[in-house]
Amino acid sequence: MFDLTRPRARIVSFARFLALGAVLALAAPALAQTDPLPSWNDGAAKQAIVEFVEATTTEGGADFVPVPERIATFDQDGTLWVEHPVYSQLVFVLDSVPALVKAKPELADQEPFKTVLSGDLAAVAKLPKEDLEKLLMETLTGMSVDDFRASATKWMAEAKDRRWKRPYNDLTYLPMQEVMQYLRANGYKTYIVTGGGQDFVRSYAEKTYGVPPEQVIGSALGTSYGYDKAGKPFLTRDPKLLINDNDAGKPESINLMIGRRPYAAFGNTAGDQQMLEYTAAGDGRRLAMLVLHDDAVREYAYGPAQGLPDTKIGAMSQALYDEAVKDGWIVISMKDDWKRIFAFD
Amino acid sequence: MFDLTRPRARIVSFARFLALGAVLALAAPALAQTDPLPSWNDGAAKQAIVEFVEATTTEGGADFVPVPERIATFDQDGTLWVEHPVYSQLVFVLDSVPALVKAKPELADQEPFKTVLSGDLAAVAKLPKEDLEKLLMETLTGMSVDDFRASATKWMAEAKDRRWKRPYNDLTYLPMQEVMQYLRANGYKTYIVTGGGQDFVRSYAEKTYGVPPEQVIGSALGTSYGYDKAGKPFLTRDPKLLINDNDAGKPESINLMIGRRPYAAFGNTAGDQQMLEYTAAGDGRRLAMLVLHDDAVREYAYGPAQGLPDTKIGAMSQALYDEAVKDGWIVISMKDDWKRIFAFD
Repeated sequence: MFDLTRPRARIVSFARFLALGAVLALAAPALAQTDPLPSWNDGAAKQAIVEFVEATTTEGGADFVPVPERIATFDQDGTLWVEHPVYSQLVFVLDSVPALVKAKPELADQEPFKTVLSGDLAAVAKLPKEDLEKLLMETLTGMSVDDFRASATKWMAEAKDRRWKRPYNDLTYLPMQEVMQYLRANGYKTYIVTGGGQDFVRSYAEKTYGVPPEQVIGSALGTSYGYDKAGKPFLTRDPKLLINDNDAGKPESINLMIGRRPYAAFGNTAGDQQMLEYTAAGDGRRLAMLVLHDDAVREYAYGPAQGLPDTKIGAMSQALYDEAVKDGWIVISMKDDWKRIFAFD
Repeated sequence: MFDLTRPRARIVSFARFLALGAVLALAAPALAQTDPLPSWNDGAAKQAIVEFVEATTTEGGADFVPVPERIATFDQDGTLWVEHPVYSQLVFVLDSVPALVKAKPELADQEPFKTVLSGDLAAVAKLPKEDLEKLLMETLTGMSVDDFRASATKWMAEAKDRRWKRPYNDLTYLPMQEVMQYLRANGYKTYIVTGGGQDFVRSYAEKTYGVPPEQVIGSALGTSYGYDKAGKPFLTRDPKLLINDNDAGKPESINLMIGRRPYAAFGNTAGDQQMLEYTAAGDGRRLAMLVLHDDAVREYAYGPAQGLPDTKIGAMSQALYDEAVKDGWIVISMKDDWKRIFAFD
């Protein structure tokens, strides 16, 4: 009679050994990936993000969210990259003036173009609202959508920020890039929801953030469909604001363009308040976070960190900061929560 | 001395045999999958779709399109499902009137509600434009976005088409469902671009077509952000048309909501003309197709197939049919190109 006990035991052991090997093989990369947010210091903000992702992606858990519903929205200026002391889009507008005046020489002696050409930024900052609107309309409208995108792409490739002497798309916050990648790796679609111009941001968002144009929502002009002399159709940018993607405009445009309520939203200014409220008011677990600019050395300090009122460029107001604390939104301190701010640090 | 010739030959043969086996093993499922469009008859229309997909997805080919740029847009009514003799959304509007009058009894004696309640569809069809607008505003606006979606979802689950006695979402064209699936299986994002109400279509598109809400573009109302008594934010549907997604409105809204030009577009009426022109005018290989309603037995025949002018419900006009032929767009004959029309056939 054959004794099957020993060989069987050996087979079982071998199977266990194989299984253990498989577990180790799987565990090794998992262990290597345990920190999806390496540029974040340990603390309440980092913990909130990790716990949110784990809770909403754990199948069978009370807070599980099916993949198609995983939507996260991010304000851009001051949330994903530097907005201080001026929005990059405003620099683009000012930089567009010389070519505009070359094409329309009669503008050289007219305001606001005269002041812009003088290079006196303090005087530009004091231009009346009507002049600023005229400046925006002349530089941002009247051309085809394709031509506008080409000029925005060209500008972004050449322009440099004055403080760091680097292209603007180097000035994205590394910790926020990590949050976007971490969310995407967990089935979330990441959207940019910006008060900035939709076509402008779309011209660089895919390269800069890995966010495709159809996931960039911004302030948008109406366009008109027409034909060139050869009968080829094209779209012209009209001097008419179709979507003002600030304040209440943010949840309104999220509904228009996505049709789902986000599970997570990130902002930094009063213009993001309604997007965060709308996100937080949804059923189940949600995440609402505000970036606080309190690092005067590595970036800038403005808003409540300085005891200052809401500034022109839209820093977080004391009132918004207080609402955030009251409603349990998480405030991200750039100074304390971020180990690194930029990839080039 | 060993003669290595024979064993080597045998090894080579065996390798060839193995390779042949591998080829056969790979070929078997490939053969089983050779027809991605089983409800289509062989012909120019089917061939155009298959050749387009193969040309734009073959890496290294002259017409290769990178995955992120693979966008296909579909009109809905008359292109993806039955639109004749009335749009389902109009039935939804008429079906909403009794509940509306119950909530606002003073409307019962007012036009157009009185005529709608009479059930006389011929009289409803003759209502003046102002009355129709009043009807649409009363039934489609003033409620919260969430409440509207819930009522649209409920209606779609209960309502039945009069001819086939089936839910409306059974009346999608099986051959077009196959085209959508075939495109998605080849990396295309499929969008619905409809003149119908965006929120209405979004309420069933994911279940009906596998198209998520963020890929449904339609005529859209403005919304207003506000708070209920408990301070919870919500969006109200305003009586203001923000996007009229017909005619030139289609390429304009594609630019607004996607920000990329489609590589393929499918329509059936004059309202789709600009979307098809805009698609076809892009660089590289594009596909523009029109569904012709010429099957009086299995569905309906209207438009140029009957020598009829463009009808109120927007069938393809003779002019559009002629433009299609001139510009090399492909006309799909429902009668000749489709082996089956509905999944329940």
